[in-house]
Amino acid sequence: MERTRFDRMNCGIARAVEAFGDAWGLLVVREAFFGVRRFADFQSNLGIPRNTLSRRLSHLVEQGVVERVDAGTHGTRFEYRLTARGEALLPVLTALREWADEHVFGRGREPLRFEERATGRRVPRLVVRSAD
Amino acid sequence: MERTRFDRMNCGIARAVEAFGDAWGLLVVREAFFGVRRFADFQSNLGIPRNTLSRRLSHLVEQGVVERVDAGTHGTRFEYRLTARGEALLPVLTALREWADEHVFGRGREPLRFEERATGRRVPRLVVRSAD
Repeated sequence: MERTRFDRMNCGIARAVEAFGDAWGLLVVREAFFGVRRFADFQSNLGIPRNTLSRRLSHLVEQGVVERVDAGTHGTRFEYRLTARGEALLPVLTALREWADEHVFGRGREPLRFEERATGRRVPRLVVRSAD
Repeated sequence: MERTRFDRMNCGIARAVEAFGDAWGLLVVREAFFGVRRFADFQSNLGIPRNTLSRRLSHLVEQGVVERVDAGTHGTRFEYRLTARGEALLPVLTALREWADEHVFGRGREPLRFEERATGRRVPRLVVRSAD
């Protein structure tokens, strides 16, 4: 039972991985950042089996990364939204994407371009800087 | 076989997760950043079963994140060292640790303090900045 052990580890890396669960969990979070909120949309965008998605969403809700909200105006319609804790995962997703752009896809694929909405300017790469 | 699917996905996040494999893979990379190079040292620091460690190291070598080097001066002694591709994972590990410092441990634990060796100054947090 490796999961249980990571759960207790006094290591931020292990605990963060525990929080999103696995690669599917991260992809659900990615979709949520892109504005997806409905179960059916997560399912069709990710091509993920229904029960797998259901387990991942429950895990993310338990971990406080996503919240399940009744957004129905005529009857019940559940949406899954990133919490503040979930939105704070942006640097994690960004670091993973930037690493893959350079070290997996290399020159074989044009990287996704991320822009600041207000200005259209490109978001610069993450840098682990030395102190100012 | 979820692994195979991530392998083919045109998504940097999925491909990056595929490269380190799972949480154990990331913890092996963490230890390598801390200067660990020998199988026995990874094993004792992580409290990881021998065969689990062996599989994770092989995966990381296949993925080009770690390389296996004969560093023996009197006979064979293998070491596992981060490649440039592995060293480029620093922002990923940093983002995960920073997220956990704030959103898992919260005020219950003093975060690890990372300093620039030359100056002793604290390394500032990663920020997904808007363009300069």
